[in-house]
Amino acid sequence: MKPTGPIPEAFASADQLMIGGKNVLELADIAGDTPFFAYDIGLIRHRVARFRAAFPQVALHYAVKANPHRPLVRAIAAMVDGIDVASEGEARIALDAGMASRDISFAGPGKRERELETAIRAGITINLESEGEAERALAIGDRLAIRPRLAVRVNPDFDLKGSGMKMGGGAKPFGIDAERVPALIGRIVAAGADYSGLHIFAGSQALMVDAIVEAQVSALALAAGLSNEAQVLPPLVNLGGGFGVPYFAGDKPLDIEAIGIALAEALAARDPILADTAFAIELGRWIVAEAGVYLTRVVDRKVSHGETFLVVDGGLHHQLAASGNFGTVVRRNYPIANAARIAAPVEEEVSVVGCLCTPLDLLGNRVGLPRTEVGDVIAIFMAGAYGASASPQSFLGHPPPVELTIDGGEIL
Amino acid sequence: MKPTGPIPEAFASADQLMIGGKNVLELADIAGDTPFFAYDIGLIRHRVARFRAAFPQVALHYAVKANPHRPLVRAIAAMVDGIDVASEGEARIALDAGMASRDISFAGPGKRERELETAIRAGITINLESEGEAERALAIGDRLAIRPRLAVRVNPDFDLKGSGMKMGGGAKPFGIDAERVPALIGRIVAAGADYSGLHIFAGSQALMVDAIVEAQVSALALAAGLSNEAQVLPPLVNLGGGFGVPYFAGDKPLDIEAIGIALAEALAARDPILADTAFAIELGRWIVAEAGVYLTRVVDRKVSHGETFLVVDGGLHHQLAASGNFGTVVRRNYPIANAARIAAPVEEEVSVVGCLCTPLDLLGNRVGLPRTEVGDVIAIFMAGAYGASASPQSFLGHPPPVELTIDGGEIL
Repeated sequence: MKPTGPIPEAFASADQLMIGGKNVLELADIAGDTPFFAYDIGLIRHRVARFRAAFPQVALHYAVKANPHRPLVRAIAAMVDGIDVASEGEARIALDAGMASRDISFAGPGKRERELETAIRAGITINLESEGEAERALAIGDRLAIRPRLAVRVNPDFDLKGSGMKMGGGAKPFGIDAERVPALIGRIVAAGADYSGLHIFAGSQALMVDAIVEAQVSALALAAGLSNEAQVLPPLVNLGGGFGVPYFAGDKPLDIEAIGIALAEALAARDPILADTAFAIELGRWIVAEAGVYLTRVVDRKVSHGETFLVVDGGLHHQLAASGNFGTVVRRNYPIANAARIAAPVEEEVSVVGCLCTPLDLLGNRVGLPRTEVGDVIAIFMAGAYGASASPQSFLGHPPPVELTIDGGEIL
Repeated sequence: MKPTGPIPEAFASADQLMIGGKNVLELADIAGDTPFFAYDIGLIRHRVARFRAAFPQVALHYAVKANPHRPLVRAIAAMVDGIDVASEGEARIALDAGMASRDISFAGPGKRERELETAIRAGITINLESEGEAERALAIGDRLAIRPRLAVRVNPDFDLKGSGMKMGGGAKPFGIDAERVPALIGRIVAAGADYSGLHIFAGSQALMVDAIVEAQVSALALAAGLSNEAQVLPPLVNLGGGFGVPYFAGDKPLDIEAIGIALAEALAARDPILADTAFAIELGRWIVAEAGVYLTRVVDRKVSHGETFLVVDGGLHHQLAASGNFGTVVRRNYPIANAARIAAPVEEEVSVVGCLCTPLDLLGNRVGLPRTEVGDVIAIFMAGAYGASASPQSFLGHPPPVELTIDGGEIL
């Protein structure tokens, strides 16, 4: 038997899985079919409250790339201070969700002319990724006679240790190398743009407090150094995110309260040039991952060479990350359960495979479950981030998944 | 500089890339925007003719999962003897393409009740993946008073050596273990179903002639042994596919003519129980991969810590496999070129990154190109199979790619 990740506490206590106050089988009726995703807004609200308590001086931004499902973004928009987008399409989702354009920032290395123009027209902050992009944005602002809101994304000279994806500390396609940033700030200010500050993102999916604290302290020092060199006060410094969540056996939830204490100390001791600066942390995965569950029904139960396979009606076309095929080297099992008998003892070792006709479509490799039959519903947890939108939905011609957003028993 | 895969011969000769008789920049005008895929039906026709010459006794089936784009499938349907589908959605595409239902076969481990019903109503052959599925199909046939066309997919007791994906030789979710197949054939025949034969698929993406020959010879022997044990003649034996294509540096095109000679010998010596059996080979990737090119425009050119990045308007949301994030352990470069200057000498080392705000979005890692500027079009080859449909198109909110199918200068 191979280990699986920990079932989130909020779901582990009931025997029949409850999501947002609804029984999973009732949700399957509402969805009209399996497979489907269910997102519990109550859990997101709880996460945001925890963040607020831990980081009273820091604004919270939602990175919509983690989950762009519209009802969910609408609910989150009312809880956070800003939304970070990575395309014109995501900007549209953020605006439609009711977020004010000045609280939307647009990062991403390949912004097109028309995307820059849309952002400038809407008054969205552009996190500049290169000097070339800065010139394009300034030219569009001139042409439209609109003063663009421009921030500078810094490619930091440090990385986020232990992070799933490093986005700093070397040659990177993201942001502008730190040593060239002061000149660019000067250029932006001289050109008459509305300079809105710095964006420093060192990595993502880190589970070590010390590494995140170190990255935040380094980001603060870097922001101060660059601002002093440019002799320009940054209205906002986005300190990045990187807060990880536990997907796999042995992963522990992040102690964000400890990070909050360390950051408060660092902020109290910050360089005078940052005295009036506002600070933000940008989180996607940490806000939504745990709140989502992917639910899929067993279509077949079969034995091959002594190994039992449960074949489900979902698969990697909806939850690529859980199959271990999206940017991971070693496949490990996400938390998984029989949704109607979460607390039941393990009775057998099975492999849970998706319905796609490819050996890649493996959702649970030799996992322990209670005896599970055709018709039973399997829950795969930690599906709220980088699930439906980060999977190849048209692969093999199956329908897209239903997505249900639930808040205190109400479907949004 | 890191190596890249070989540019397909059909595209390597011109200086400006020509696809299906059209210049790439003209195609970009027709597409209306970049990024886009272009598929050359002429190259597919050439592949099919090569197959026909090499395997005069063997039917050719197209595995539509490789590329389900409708105009392309319509063109292929007119060239092949059958289409293999893996979902109700793919069955619909095959029928809409004009393929007769009796020449469509439906494989896949997680077929749902409604999918089985659709197939039985349409007269599509179901490749049974388990005894449970056999019983479900027979029950639906009884209920509808339609005699279902049923084949048995065998989990072979051998694998395809050197294949990218092994689909036999051990515990597998696909097919029925060989030793249980004769009993199932007996059950199907006794139940009055229309038994249509055996499906034996040992693996995919193999580039070694000997391995494929060995797998085909083994499949023939297995089909004969199982049929003798069941004492039932199989009308058709699908010998699987597995013909690979060269993606990476050092890969050589497969010598299918050598395979054809070996298979002809094996067929001549086949067991008498297979004397009147028809044989098919099922190919997806080999038919379409080379015929497709992904074209994406340079949006930014930037330098970070001495490394030059070309940021393009496409990315892994359209071509996940080329980014190395779909079921590969070690990332290697697909063939890549500046589409307007394919034959130009290498002038610099650059990394070509997609527009997505994630370090996973790497399309060319330290590749050699002629000097390439913002506005230039980059071609990524071998994009005809498992491209658009096997990528997370909604990831980060960009529009879906345009797909152009071209036949001798005409857009289909």
